[in-house]
Amino acid sequence: MVYTPGVAQVCNYIVQNPEMAREYTSIGNTVCIATNGSAVLGLGNIGVLAAMPVMEGKSLILNKMGGISCVPLLIDSADANVLVDTLFNLSKTYGLIMIEDLAAPTCFEVEKNLQARLDIPVFHDDQHGTATVILAALIKALKVTRKKKNSLRVVINGSGAAGIASARMLLEYGFKDIILCDRAGAIYRGREGDMNPYKEEVSLITNMRKEKGALKDILRNKDVFIGVSGPGLVTKEMIASMNETPVVFALANPVPEIWPKDALEAGASVALDGRTVNNALVFPGLIRGALDSKASKITYAMKFAAAETLASLGGKNEIVPNFMNIAVHKKVAQAVMSASGR
Amino acid sequence: MVYTPGVAQVCNYIVQNPEMAREYTSIGNTVCIATNGSAVLGLGNIGVLAAMPVMEGKSLILNKMGGISCVPLLIDSADANVLVDTLFNLSKTYGLIMIEDLAAPTCFEVEKNLQARLDIPVFHDDQHGTATVILAALIKALKVTRKKKNSLRVVINGSGAAGIASARMLLEYGFKDIILCDRAGAIYRGREGDMNPYKEEVSLITNMRKEKGALKDILRNKDVFIGVSGPGLVTKEMIASMNETPVVFALANPVPEIWPKDALEAGASVALDGRTVNNALVFPGLIRGALDSKASKITYAMKFAAAETLASLGGKNEIVPNFMNIAVHKKVAQAVMSASGR
Repeated sequence: MVYTPGVAQVCNYIVQNPEMAREYTSIGNTVCIATNGSAVLGLGNIGVLAAMPVMEGKSLILNKMGGISCVPLLIDSADANVLVDTLFNLSKTYGLIMIEDLAAPTCFEVEKNLQARLDIPVFHDDQHGTATVILAALIKALKVTRKKKNSLRVVINGSGAAGIASARMLLEYGFKDIILCDRAGAIYRGREGDMNPYKEEVSLITNMRKEKGALKDILRNKDVFIGVSGPGLVTKEMIASMNETPVVFALANPVPEIWPKDALEAGASVALDGRTVNNALVFPGLIRGALDSKASKITYAMKFAAAETLASLGGKNEIVPNFMNIAVHKKVAQAVMSASGR
Repeated sequence: MVYTPGVAQVCNYIVQNPEMAREYTSIGNTVCIATNGSAVLGLGNIGVLAAMPVMEGKSLILNKMGGISCVPLLIDSADANVLVDTLFNLSKTYGLIMIEDLAAPTCFEVEKNLQARLDIPVFHDDQHGTATVILAALIKALKVTRKKKNSLRVVINGSGAAGIASARMLLEYGFKDIILCDRAGAIYRGREGDMNPYKEEVSLITNMRKEKGALKDILRNKDVFIGVSGPGLVTKEMIASMNETPVVFALANPVPEIWPKDALEAGASVALDGRTVNNALVFPGLIRGALDSKASKITYAMKFAAAETLASLGGKNEIVPNFMNIAVHKKVAQAVMSASGR
């Protein structure tokens, strides 16, 4: 029955009922992870072949934790239009398209333009997976430390995919005061040099006091540090200069901006690195929920549902639960599905 | 180790040794089956969604019989350039690209232009898998019936992918006298109407006597009928008009040009349909051998090795062996690897 001549019956049925292709073939449970190898982990632009092990690892996690069939796609081009066209041409194969390890600002353009042409979700994990797990950890950390989100001052270092998406998501969730930094220091409205259209956009909604200066200066008297940048960029002195008992998420990979132990010694109330605050906590459940709800895109409501669920599931001495716990991903998927409105 | 931070070591190793990506990732053992759904089985242009069950069935056969990871790709375009560009852009993901159920003459253009740009094999099963299994069955049938290939007169009905590729392969193998027919009858040099560049090309090397007429007329006094056309196009009377004890492969799917039972009653010495003479006998071993030898394309020598091996493996009352026998595919793979010259 799997092959000729029996398979023709299934083909004919789908000709008559195209909407059933999702049920009667692998389409509804299959996702691709597409990369051009331009921003892989902290390794940078290492090319598609060397990016493959990361795609394989993520595919495996998606499969084991979310029960999803996942295939890597290596697209050897730096051109956003080539990336969008190639993925658009193949899109009927999948229930959702993940883009992965694609350098900013190309990743923003690819995600936006591809999603505009498709009625299946396009999900850039380095943006939204990272932003969602940061939000989850932050919700829980504030609960533990009894801080309030609307009075907190947050500094995000790194204005690539993860930094910009995190700033946007925290604002959308109700945080009020966020300063985004990059190699040139704080980003503010009207800054000249080292800008791009995406930094311009975010400069309109962050850093309303237009603070200027290096990360070292900006960190002073802030409450939360989120690092999605590079190794060793934050010292104990910088943590000590923050407001009392700050929250520190130093997520650069594999070596964080500051090791959690050092941050705690310098006065942080909560300090975690990327091994704990990891998007592998988010994407299996979020994608499972998106596929099950047949969502045409992944909304903020779905991402917030994932973050709040994760924030509620940490054990007694945990900010977020361990990603090896399959029950966690199932609960995230259920919450995402409820939030999808389908 | 499968994921961060351990995976970075594998990435860095591949940056230094890109040729090892085939060994250290899934690339060397992964194949895609790409279709635009324009010529699916005998069902025609049913579109990509309805083609998916066939891609899935073939993927499963390739996996179970050849140990190969295989992923379907649905490319929703009739434009040869779009198909070639899309597959080229993704090609680093795979060790080999299969194209599948793509209508002639687009399939010829896609295969030729894509192969010209790649150093991995591009394999169009409807052409070369079908031609190879036909050659295998013919080699064995001639042995059984003690006929000689260079004096035989062969008629192939159907001048799409399978028909044209089979004519070329039989000529390359040493058959001398082949007439290709289509809906308009025999194809001959200089025919006007219902031609395309690929029929023009093949008209220069087939039907050297320039026979004209309908299939019914052409079959008279021929020794071999190969049908890769449509259901019920051949009658018992037409078989009876052929030379003594003709060989009949009626491969239209799911309903053949003539049922084997009827062809035998009309005097055929050997009569088989597409359930026996099926490319599933060829592609798992041929692709396994091509991947193992790291061949950059699939040559005639490799296809002939596959055909001769299959012709040698049929049991006592078989023309070709049963495709469910895994040992058959292993032997084909070994022969293909030897013939690859690597």
